Amino acid sequence: MRFSILKKALGSRNRNNIPSLFNSTRPLSLLFSQSQRPSFGIAFDIDGVVLLGSSPIGGSPSALKRLYQESGDLKIPYIFLTNGGGFRESKRASELSKLLGVNVLPSQVVQGHSPFKQLVNRYENGLIVAIGKGEPSAVMTEYGFKNVLSIDEYASYFDNIDPLVQYKKWTIDHANENTTIKENTKIYSQRVQAAFIVSDSVDWSRDIQVLCDILRSGGLPGRETGYQPDLYFANDDLEYQANFPTERLGMGAFRIALESIFNRIHPNALEYTSFGKPNALVFQNAETVLKQLVSSLHPNAHDVNQANPGSHHFKTLYMVGDNPSVDIKGAHQAGRPWFSILTRTGVFKGKKNHAMFPADLVVDTVEEAVDYILRREFTK
Amino acid sequence: MRFSILKKALGSRNRNNIPSLFNSTRPLSLLFSQSQRPSFGIAFDIDGVVLLGSSPIGGSPSALKRLYQESGDLKIPYIFLTNGGGFRESKRASELSKLLGVNVLPSQVVQGHSPFKQLVNRYENGLIVAIGKGEPSAVMTEYGFKNVLSIDEYASYFDNIDPLVQYKKWTIDHANENTTIKENTKIYSQRVQAAFIVSDSVDWSRDIQVLCDILRSGGLPGRETGYQPDLYFANDDLEYQANFPTERLGMGAFRIALESIFNRIHPNALEYTSFGKPNALVFQNAETVLKQLVSSLHPNAHDVNQANPGSHHFKTLYMVGDNPSVDIKGAHQAGRPWFSILTRTGVFKGKKNHAMFPADLVVDTVEEAVDYILRREFTK
Repeated sequence: MRFSILKKALGSRNRNNIPSLFNSTRPLSLLFSQSQRPSFGIAFDIDGVVLLGSSPIGGSPSALKRLYQESGDLKIPYIFLTNGGGFRESKRASELSKLLGVNVLPSQVVQGHSPFKQLVNRYENGLIVAIGKGEPSAVMTEYGFKNVLSIDEYASYFDNIDPLVQYKKWTIDHANENTTIKENTKIYSQRVQAAFIVSDSVDWSRDIQVLCDILRSGGLPGRETGYQPDLYFANDDLEYQANFPTERLGMGAFRIALESIFNRIHPNALEYTSFGKPNALVFQNAETVLKQLVSSLHPNAHDVNQANPGSHHFKTLYMVGDNPSVDIKGAHQAGRPWFSILTRTGVFKGKKNHAMFPADLVVDTVEEAVDYILRREFTK
Repeated sequence: MRFSILKKALGSRNRNNIPSLFNSTRPLSLLFSQSQRPSFGIAFDIDGVVLLGSSPIGGSPSALKRLYQESGDLKIPYIFLTNGGGFRESKRASELSKLLGVNVLPSQVVQGHSPFKQLVNRYENGLIVAIGKGEPSAVMTEYGFKNVLSIDEYASYFDNIDPLVQYKKWTIDHANENTTIKENTKIYSQRVQAAFIVSDSVDWSRDIQVLCDILRSGGLPGRETGYQPDLYFANDDLEYQANFPTERLGMGAFRIALESIFNRIHPNALEYTSFGKPNALVFQNAETVLKQLVSSLHPNAHDVNQANPGSHHFKTLYMVGDNPSVDIKGAHQAGRPWFSILTRTGVFKGKKNHAMFPADLVVDTVEEAVDYILRREFTK
C-alpha cells in the first residue's frame, strides 16, 4: 500500500520541521550553487487543483507563496501544466498572478495548445481556422501562424451556414482577435487547410456544423465531398472539475459529439490529433520547460550549462493533479523522473487511491502536496 | 420503372385539362356531396418543399392557392406534416398564412411535437423540462402539462451549471414563455420526471451538459447517479435542407451527440423515444387529422358521419416531401392509402428516383406535385 506508507510518513511530520534553509530569502542562485542546482521541479494542474473557476482552492495562494523568496523572486522551479487554454500564455500568467498573489511568468504557463506552435511550418500561408473560448486566433497568431481566422469570423463569411443564428443573440467581441486576413479577401473560396480546437467550443451547434462543413468538403463549406483537412485538439479531457458539484463536460466530450456526427454523414471516419495530458510528449516538453526555467533563473553568466539547459538533470519532477486519467496516468506513462501527487479538490474524490490510475501519493489539497514535496526534498 | 411511367403520364397532360368542376367557387360541401366527400387529401412537408428558411420555394404560394376557392375557403383537404416545431400550432398557422398567402388553420398544422400532448396524463404534476428553439414551454403548457420549465429557465436555477456561460452573452426572451412554476419554489430540489426535446436545441453545450446532469442523476443535477428520467425527441432528423447549399444538422444529430457523450459517462446506455416522420404512427395520426378536417368543413349538421370522422374513407392520401428517408420511407411504411411524391427542392436532388427509398412519383417542385394530384383526381 504505497498510499498508506506515504500518508504515514507525511503524518509524522509537521510544517515546522522544514529545515531553515528553505525559509531562506536568498535568491535561487545562492540557495542552489552550481553543484546544488535544484534537483527537483513541480508541475501543477490548474483547474481542480489551484483554482475552481476563478476561485483559489486547497490553500493554493499560501502553498505557492512558499515557492518564492520573501522578496517575491522564484525559489523553487515550478510550472502550471494545464490542458486548458484559450488565451496567450502572457495573459494567462498575468491572470494567475492576480488570482494567486504570486508573480507567475509567461514561461511558467504550459497550456493544452502550446504544442500547436510546432506546427507553424506545416501550414505556411494556408488558411487555418481556430476554435474555442477566449482568443483562439490571437493565440495562433502569436505562435506564428500567418493566415488564421477564428471560427466566429470564418462563419460570418457564409450566409445561413448556422440555421439557428436567429436564436442566438451573441455579443461577439473581436477586439482581442489579431486577424491576419485582409477584409476584401474572398474567404469562402479559400480552402481551409486545418482546424485547431484551441480551447472549449462555446457554440457547439454552430461549431460542429461549420467543422462538419469544412471537414467533409475538403475545406470549402457548401461544396461537394472532399478529402478531410487536418484537425487538432488541444486536449481530449472528457470531463473536468469546475465550480459545480459534479464534473463539467470538456473538449473530449466535444470531440465525441463531432466525431459521432461526422462519422454518420461522411463515408470515412474522422481523423484527428489530440494533444494535452496524458500524452507523454506533454510531460517531456514540461521537463524541457522546467530546465529552461532553472537556466533562466540562474544568474551565473559563466554557467557552462546555461546555453544547453537540456544537460540539467532533475532527480524528481512532481506532477500535482486532480484527474487520475489525465494527470496521474500521464505522469506514470512518462516514467522517471515524474512522481505523481493526486489531490481531492477536483475530479478525484475517493478516500483511498484511484483504482485504475493510482498516484504515488494522495493528499487532500495542493497545500498538503507542497508541504510533502518540501519536506521530502529538504530533509534528505 | 414506376418513376418513368408516372412522369410520362404527367407529361401527357397540362394544367388546362383540369375539369371545370375544379375551378368552381362553390364551397367544399357543394363541391363534394355526401356521396362525393373528398376521397383524397394531401400532407405537405414544410422545410425544403414549400419553404427554405422563411422563403417560399417551388411555386408553393400558387400551388396552395389552387387548393382554395376564390373566396379563400378551403376546397381540398390538406395539412402540413412537419418534423419541425418550437411554436404553438396556432402561431405556426398564422406565420404560414403570411408567408404563403393562404389562410392556414391551426388544425392544418401537425408538428413533430404534436404527439407529446398524448403524454400529459403520464406526468400529472411532475416537473418536466422542455428544450428547443422558439417557445418550448409554451407549447407544452398549451398541450396541458402543468409543471413545465424551459431548459433556459431551469438551468438558471443552478449556479455554475454551464461553465461556458460567461462566454455567452445571450439575450433570453422569456416574454412568450408561460411558466407555470411559482417563483419561490425550490426548483433544484424537485426531481425532473422527463425531458422533452420540442425543437432544435440552440445552445448545444449547455443543453447537453444540463441533460446529462438531469439524466444521470435521476433528475437532480449535481447529485449522485440515479435512474434515468424519460427522454423524448420530437423527431430524429439527422439533416434537413435550409437556406444553405448543403444540408444542416438537425435534431437527430443533437440526439447522436447527447447519446454518444451520455454513454461514455454513464454505465447504462441512453434510453429515449423519438417521434416524427418516418414513424408510422405519425401518418396514422395525419389521416385522422385530415378526416377531422373534412368533417369540420362539411356544413351539413345532419351528416351522420360528422360525429365520427373516423368512418370517412380516403382512397388516396398524398405525402409531398423532400426527404427520402423521412417523408418517403414514412409514407411507404404507412402503406395504403398513402402515395408518396418526392420533390427536388430540398434534401433530395437526384435526377431519377431515390435508390433506397423510391417514391411513387418524383417531381421538381411542389407546384408540379399539386398539378399532378389535381389532374389525377379530377380526370378519373
